[in-house]
Amino acid sequence: MAPAIHIGPAAPEHLVEAVAEGGGTLVELEQAEGVVWVGQPDELPELPASVKWVQLQSAGIESWVERVRATPGVTFTTAAGAYAAQVAEHALALLLAGVRGINQYARAWSWDPHPSDGTLAGSTVAVIGAGGIGRELIRRLEPHDVKILAVTRSGRDGTIPVERIGEIWGQADHFVLCAPSTEDTQHLIGAPELWVMKAHTWIVNIARGSLIDTEALVQALASGIIGGAALDVTDPEPLPNGHPLWASPNALITPHVANPAPAMARDLAKRVAENVRRFAADEDLLAPVDLRAGY
Amino acid sequence: MAPAIHIGPAAPEHLVEAVAEGGGTLVELEQAEGVVWVGQPDELPELPASVKWVQLQSAGIESWVERVRATPGVTFTTAAGAYAAQVAEHALALLLAGVRGINQYARAWSWDPHPSDGTLAGSTVAVIGAGGIGRELIRRLEPHDVKILAVTRSGRDGTIPVERIGEIWGQADHFVLCAPSTEDTQHLIGAPELWVMKAHTWIVNIARGSLIDTEALVQALASGIIGGAALDVTDPEPLPNGHPLWASPNALITPHVANPAPAMARDLAKRVAENVRRFAADEDLLAPVDLRAGY
Repeated sequence: MAPAIHIGPAAPEHLVEAVAEGGGTLVELEQAEGVVWVGQPDELPELPASVKWVQLQSAGIESWVERVRATPGVTFTTAAGAYAAQVAEHALALLLAGVRGINQYARAWSWDPHPSDGTLAGSTVAVIGAGGIGRELIRRLEPHDVKILAVTRSGRDGTIPVERIGEIWGQADHFVLCAPSTEDTQHLIGAPELWVMKAHTWIVNIARGSLIDTEALVQALASGIIGGAALDVTDPEPLPNGHPLWASPNALITPHVANPAPAMARDLAKRVAENVRRFAADEDLLAPVDLRAGY
Repeated sequence: MAPAIHIGPAAPEHLVEAVAEGGGTLVELEQAEGVVWVGQPDELPELPASVKWVQLQSAGIESWVERVRATPGVTFTTAAGAYAAQVAEHALALLLAGVRGINQYARAWSWDPHPSDGTLAGSTVAVIGAGGIGRELIRRLEPHDVKILAVTRSGRDGTIPVERIGEIWGQADHFVLCAPSTEDTQHLIGAPELWVMKAHTWIVNIARGSLIDTEALVQALASGIIGGAALDVTDPEPLPNGHPLWASPNALITPHVANPAPAMARDLAKRVAENVRRFAADEDLLAPVDLRAGY
């Protein structure tokens, strides 16, 4: 039986095709067994009892926690992992841009080499959170003659368990934050962590702004105690006009574009097709929300 | 017998160590069998007849051609290949920066995502000149889900021979120039090549400025017929103040820093040690100058 799937609040063409590709039939919400929701939580109407599954388009669930909690008996799935390759690509772009001084050269109006420019080769890169994005990033770092320190919750497979994360702040040359936003990762990097880092260290954040204590970072950049920060996510976000990070020569801000719209549409469609297929076959869905783990 | 090596016009510590590591003995120029020359061509005095070999520090030989021609019977070696990994890293940094819009985000003072940002994944990248730098770049591109078109003089090993280069200008999404500067590669990219490129195409040049017709490039960028150009080398070089490329939103200029000074010192020392060892053992030296090939 083709499962009855509703797409809302609007049904973009690429997702209509994805539902068909997965073997689903498009229906109104009242007849739906599954829902693909590309809108905000407060736009989603009360679900009829027929709905067993809701597919979200974001990889994180912060804004959905209350709604998921208030909707027992329905499985919510995110797009976690679907965008991992794109985000990892952006993380590497930011890391290389920082280490190579491209943020400052991009702003220059004259030929003025910096004698102290670094190279990624020969450095130690800590990848914090080795889920889908972290793994995709590690794959891209491997040809670069770097030592990789991967930090995970479990410490499996030769990674560093999160309890021992304190050891790495003074040890690695650069840090890439790929961890989910949870209570545990709030201000993972604050003043105490920044003060033990090396003077040439770059921090890349493509996860969530809350992982970094922004005020502490601004002070660290102003004092020159680290090399710089390349941030695709910020706290607050969007970063307001006039915020000191805009003016810092050692900060590089991209406005949450690690997963650009065209790539996102393509990758979400793939995920929707696969989860519709699994829903039809009564298999485990990809990326179910786990409220206890916080993602 | 330890070969007698002179380092001039000055003898930096890391090269003194490299000569010792390669098994050489430091001597004055008058006693030298080999010379490591870290100065300009016009600073090099007339060589005594005892000198059989001169090691240069640059990877290219443009400024040395006359001097090499005027010094028959002496083998000149360059540092070609020694810096390949560093330069390839910079090339990837520039390519990712361009494709990901980092040049424009670095100049921004407010949160303003561009809806049309691209990704490297899924694109076709032409690597023009698959010598040491090209091969190191290809290794770094491999995890990125790209199709690679390598153009070489010979067309060996599945590469595209240079006679067929005309086919690729409209075919690849992005171009990275890694070819030596010769008469044949002068203005390799000019107006006719630019006009058949795709609207999102980025050109990266880490080779020599003369490979691109700068005036044609400026016009192409102003007309928006390509995505942009990320240049570590320019023509003229240094790029003068007020040059239109400084003001182009789609140009990213780094001032010939693909091989930053600290990395260059490290890599040159390795090359000197290896060539001194080969000179002592009467083995073939790395990177001898070939005037007929032009490098």
